[in-house]
Amino acid sequence: MAKPKKTQRPKAQAPKGFADYFGSDVTERAAMLQKIAAVYHRYGFDALESSAVETVEALGKFLPDVDRPNAGVFAWQEEDGDWLALRYDMTAPLARVYAQHRNDLPSPYRRYTMGPVWRNEKPGPGRFRQFYQCDADTVGTVSMAADAEICAMLADTLEEVGIARGDYVIRINNRKVLNGVMEVAGLAGDDKEAERGIVLRAIDKLDRLGPEGVRALLGKGRKDESGDYTEGAGLTQKQSDIVMSFFTSSWTLPEDDIRQFAVAIGIPYDQNKMQASTLKYLRNLVSSSGVGLEGVNELIEIAQLLHAAGYGPDRIIIDPSVVRGLGYYTGPVYEAELTFDVQNEKGQTVQFGSVAGGGRYDDLVKRFTGQEVPATGISIGVDRLLAALRATGRSGGETHGPVVVTVMDRDRMADYQTMVAELRQAGIRAEVYLGNPKNFGNQLKYADKRNSPIAIIEGEDEKERGVVQIKDLILGAKIAETATHEEWKGRPSQFEVPRADMLAKVQEILKG
Amino acid sequence: MAKPKKTQRPKAQAPKGFADYFGSDVTERAAMLQKIAAVYHRYGFDALESSAVETVEALGKFLPDVDRPNAGVFAWQEEDGDWLALRYDMTAPLARVYAQHRNDLPSPYRRYTMGPVWRNEKPGPGRFRQFYQCDADTVGTVSMAADAEICAMLADTLEEVGIARGDYVIRINNRKVLNGVMEVAGLAGDDKEAERGIVLRAIDKLDRLGPEGVRALLGKGRKDESGDYTEGAGLTQKQSDIVMSFFTSSWTLPEDDIRQFAVAIGIPYDQNKMQASTLKYLRNLVSSSGVGLEGVNELIEIAQLLHAAGYGPDRIIIDPSVVRGLGYYTGPVYEAELTFDVQNEKGQTVQFGSVAGGGRYDDLVKRFTGQEVPATGISIGVDRLLAALRATGRSGGETHGPVVVTVMDRDRMADYQTMVAELRQAGIRAEVYLGNPKNFGNQLKYADKRNSPIAIIEGEDEKERGVVQIKDLILGAKIAETATHEEWKGRPSQFEVPRADMLAKVQEILKG
Repeated sequence: MAKPKKTQRPKAQAPKGFADYFGSDVTERAAMLQKIAAVYHRYGFDALESSAVETVEALGKFLPDVDRPNAGVFAWQEEDGDWLALRYDMTAPLARVYAQHRNDLPSPYRRYTMGPVWRNEKPGPGRFRQFYQCDADTVGTVSMAADAEICAMLADTLEEVGIARGDYVIRINNRKVLNGVMEVAGLAGDDKEAERGIVLRAIDKLDRLGPEGVRALLGKGRKDESGDYTEGAGLTQKQSDIVMSFFTSSWTLPEDDIRQFAVAIGIPYDQNKMQASTLKYLRNLVSSSGVGLEGVNELIEIAQLLHAAGYGPDRIIIDPSVVRGLGYYTGPVYEAELTFDVQNEKGQTVQFGSVAGGGRYDDLVKRFTGQEVPATGISIGVDRLLAALRATGRSGGETHGPVVVTVMDRDRMADYQTMVAELRQAGIRAEVYLGNPKNFGNQLKYADKRNSPIAIIEGEDEKERGVVQIKDLILGAKIAETATHEEWKGRPSQFEVPRADMLAKVQEILKG
Repeated sequence: MAKPKKTQRPKAQAPKGFADYFGSDVTERAAMLQKIAAVYHRYGFDALESSAVETVEALGKFLPDVDRPNAGVFAWQEEDGDWLALRYDMTAPLARVYAQHRNDLPSPYRRYTMGPVWRNEKPGPGRFRQFYQCDADTVGTVSMAADAEICAMLADTLEEVGIARGDYVIRINNRKVLNGVMEVAGLAGDDKEAERGIVLRAIDKLDRLGPEGVRALLGKGRKDESGDYTEGAGLTQKQSDIVMSFFTSSWTLPEDDIRQFAVAIGIPYDQNKMQASTLKYLRNLVSSSGVGLEGVNELIEIAQLLHAAGYGPDRIIIDPSVVRGLGYYTGPVYEAELTFDVQNEKGQTVQFGSVAGGGRYDDLVKRFTGQEVPATGISIGVDRLLAALRATGRSGGETHGPVVVTVMDRDRMADYQTMVAELRQAGIRAEVYLGNPKNFGNQLKYADKRNSPIAIIEGEDEKERGVVQIKDLILGAKIAETATHEEWKGRPSQFEVPRADMLAKVQEILKG
């Protein structure tokens, strides 16, 4: 008889770009999301959980001239011919949900949502194909109060999860002001679309290229370090000055003018010098543009509302240097930055940077219903914010595992179960060793791997005498580390206590 | 010029079998899962969150003779040729994770996980293609203490989320005992595999067919109501008696024998009459089968451990009538049933039934590594348990929306923002109306749709006089319902209070 072909074993490997999260990586994220949800809820936002799967057509990821959804999504075809895909963000599903349920939803509709999204992109170090997003959006209102509210909520959220006031700033800009600047610089009109595109892309690179690099791209063009040449927008010096001044505006106005302006718009000058200066400057800059003035007035309204609600420029500021995502949005845009220093991978000290961003967009459901429905919202980068909390010691750090009750006598498992039951009922995380108990050293190794604070031992002798041994593993580890240190000399790391006192002694040790 | 073809709008519709969850449907589930996680954590279980996407080969969903993964999973082919799929349960990913990370994980490994799973099945009423599972498993131990512990944890979990003691029971059975019964009935051996299959399927239908229906299937066969005939296993009367007695065993033994047996195995007879009777009966039944006796001894050990940990038969019982899933498991199996009555869709009063189940399985990672790794675990039906909590009023019910601050004067939005900020800072859920404020009636309709407990009104007149109007909408609704009732006569549902007292008055009303 022929030998049956050996079946090949499947590889035990998560797909490329997908990760497994263990223990505190899961629980710390969950705890952070829970705190965020509590703030959103207090602001009147309602939870929404749509399914992970959407039709490709609802996601808008189907180009008419291709026979598969275009790159970026994980998609598959159903037997009935429909194409389905995993959502790649939370905004496309919101649009579908709002269009589908709009008659049952309150208007305006405030909603928050949190969960994984999937991107079919090339994975790389730190770049995953599944990650969390946490969004809050207000749908169906043109009021700037919605934008101001979301920025205030973002400030409250950051403080709630543990970012101290002063360690973050929320910057607000407005796409309409940029449109106004374009108009003033003579870049309005359909025939200037190419130039506007180059200008937008150039501004978007401010962080990387610096003002001089951007200025080169606004003008003739720029040769990068490798020698590659990027064609510029061909703006004149004066046009470039106007565009550049938009996001590098500074104190060029007389103080009295700014003070008067602050009084006129009703925000106290002394606490808002920078804001008043910026707003006044922008108003002058775009004074000949209708859309530009509209944008500045929206920013003024937001500044007024935030002032009234008690959110000063120590938390939220008007700042035209926020350029990220300007292309996508139609009105105010906002970004939350963490301002404390961290070490980057190269060991350089850098600001932590952006953890959330968003803005106003007007065509949320137009694709579905033909109606224009205004919306504004933010998305928090969940993993970045969690990393920030860890970097500042606000999350993670030393957390202990369960108390481990060791098994000295396999036949007395019931006794050990009784012990853990007693500890658990007192709210203490505890477990009995469930491996092969023959080798006691393995049990202590297990307790070590579990990061246990305490091991409990009850052998035959202890049982007879009505006592248990309690090993303080934290103290034990410290003593082992600093064996010669006087401090620990008098302190034993193992105690014998009457069985009846086990719980009290464990509680005492856990309190530290 | 040809008219551009009108683009067809996408349908605003979730894919078939997928649902959107709003507001309290999301938050109540999250709150329940959080309570469950707290219990699991206290038992020493560690959180695990693996990705939603796995390779089809890791899921074991690829039959060698087909060129697509077989039905049941949502799968797609990557450009590099790999097939990926959404997980359809939490056990297959656990197997992959354990095989992949086994050198870094503690052994034994206790883990819990919660999240959505996806089934590519025909959707139906109440049958969704994405739903939550919440699993806890202990990997890498043969100890019955692991099984006993999981049953105790399940009891604690049910009570923690709000199922009262007495409203649930956890039943434990053992696959090995059934194997022993098969042996005793002369159904062991490779040549009896067909018969054993029929017997297993027949037992699995006990709920639906009743004992007589099962007996018919054990014998010659059974004609159902439609006239269709199902071939039976062809067992003799005596063989059938043995099989039937396995799961319908009752008080056929002298009380003294049972009492003696209870003393011998160390569980108090008076509190465990039924358990002792069952165990003694089963031991007699399978006394000639090695595997059967092993199974009974495992059940005895579990009963002893549970007794020691304080879990009596009012919570957890040994019960051979648990047949669900016996085919899949290799040792103890357990099921949690809610015993209170509910109305089914037909208006009949029925027991709520099963909300969780699980058992021991030995080939968790064998597919990947070739090693046999024993494991035991449970899965909670998250949506069913949530439905149970609602049916008993333990979750859901009357929950109010946010306090709504109405907008009487569009230009004073800043004042209204200040009000909501004050309420939110006191922890009160509050929002300002963000729609078009022109029609005040719409604002009250909005408050109604939001299920708001209170609306706050500050018009020009109130502003001048330094007061606000506070409408108690809950009381207002009650008065409207029972307009003639004496009780409400003296109680106004609208109050005018000084602006400075707004917060205190709102707090007073919300307290009820």
